[in-house]
Amino acid sequence: MILEAALDVLAETGYDGMTVDMVAVRAGAARATVYRRWPTKIDLVLHAVRRLAPGRVDVDQLPDTGSLRGDCIALMQPDTSEEAERRVRAISGLQSIAGRDERIAAVLADGGMQPWIDANRVLIQRAVDRKEYGPVDVDTLAQMLPLMCTCRVAVQQLPITPEYAIGLIDAILLPAMRGAQP
Amino acid sequence: MILEAALDVLAETGYDGMTVDMVAVRAGAARATVYRRWPTKIDLVLHAVRRLAPGRVDVDQLPDTGSLRGDCIALMQPDTSEEAERRVRAISGLQSIAGRDERIAAVLADGGMQPWIDANRVLIQRAVDRKEYGPVDVDTLAQMLPLMCTCRVAVQQLPITPEYAIGLIDAILLPAMRGAQP
Repeated sequence: MILEAALDVLAETGYDGMTVDMVAVRAGAARATVYRRWPTKIDLVLHAVRRLAPGRVDVDQLPDTGSLRGDCIALMQPDTSEEAERRVRAISGLQSIAGRDERIAAVLADGGMQPWIDANRVLIQRAVDRKEYGPVDVDTLAQMLPLMCTCRVAVQQLPITPEYAIGLIDAILLPAMRGAQP
Repeated sequence: MILEAALDVLAETGYDGMTVDMVAVRAGAARATVYRRWPTKIDLVLHAVRRLAPGRVDVDQLPDTGSLRGDCIALMQPDTSEEAERRVRAISGLQSIAGRDERIAAVLADGGMQPWIDANRVLIQRAVDRKEYGPVDVDTLAQMLPLMCTCRVAVQQLPITPEYAIGLIDAILLPAMRGAQP
């Protein structure tokens, strides 16, 4: 599949190193086919990344296990797979072009972590609403898991294991919920 | 100064886009001078980034204000300047090469956030030792500020304002310290 191949090549070589030809070879597709649909590299990359990002988390179908801990673990599950790491690496491969192309910068800012931040905000607000915890700074806390996990993969180049993710929930998120002062 | 110029060019164009010539022009130095000291681009970049990273925080001279909040704010101060953002952008410019060069990957993993994580670990442990807070998961909490701030600059491409950094301290770190369960 061409868009999947584009993400793989992007993850491996970064935006500057990739070519449309490399993507065609990886996908086993004719070069002419690829160039007909996506005349330039940036068209191809934007399409691949835009299509990918919103599918990562569905804010309308969030887990509802009855506890914030259960909800967060259920939400993290899909992001602990190799598949998800490849996605974050693909996004990391866009860093070199982000400063030079506003469309790429917008995809990174909006399409990368934002759905995860939104999902965390819903889960945290729900836990406050059902009085599992008192009032907290929902917007700031909602950024913690997405930013720390993305930084781990994209900057530290380390995998997000379930142990790591659950460690963040148990050592940071839940204590911060308990320790918030009204 | 040539190494400073290398960081500027790296921050602006990314590793793949930069050339030694661009750095020489930026520094106002003769190309031959630059090439004599650093025969290849990667030599130059490794030297510039290695020299920079350890200077960002001195674990032997950490602030000691008497409270964790005061210590963290004093520690963050140098990292909220334009200077520090340029440094993080330079590190971000290395992402495209990190997967292909182990030396760069090592600098990113060891030289980037690690001194900040170490500094946070010292400040948090000290707060526990003086009984400002009860026992906490020091290693995990020490990662929070460095990872979230780095992700904000390197991935979200947003500035680290003092308001943002203090928001993380007040909404996440200090509540998590208070809410930790032994």
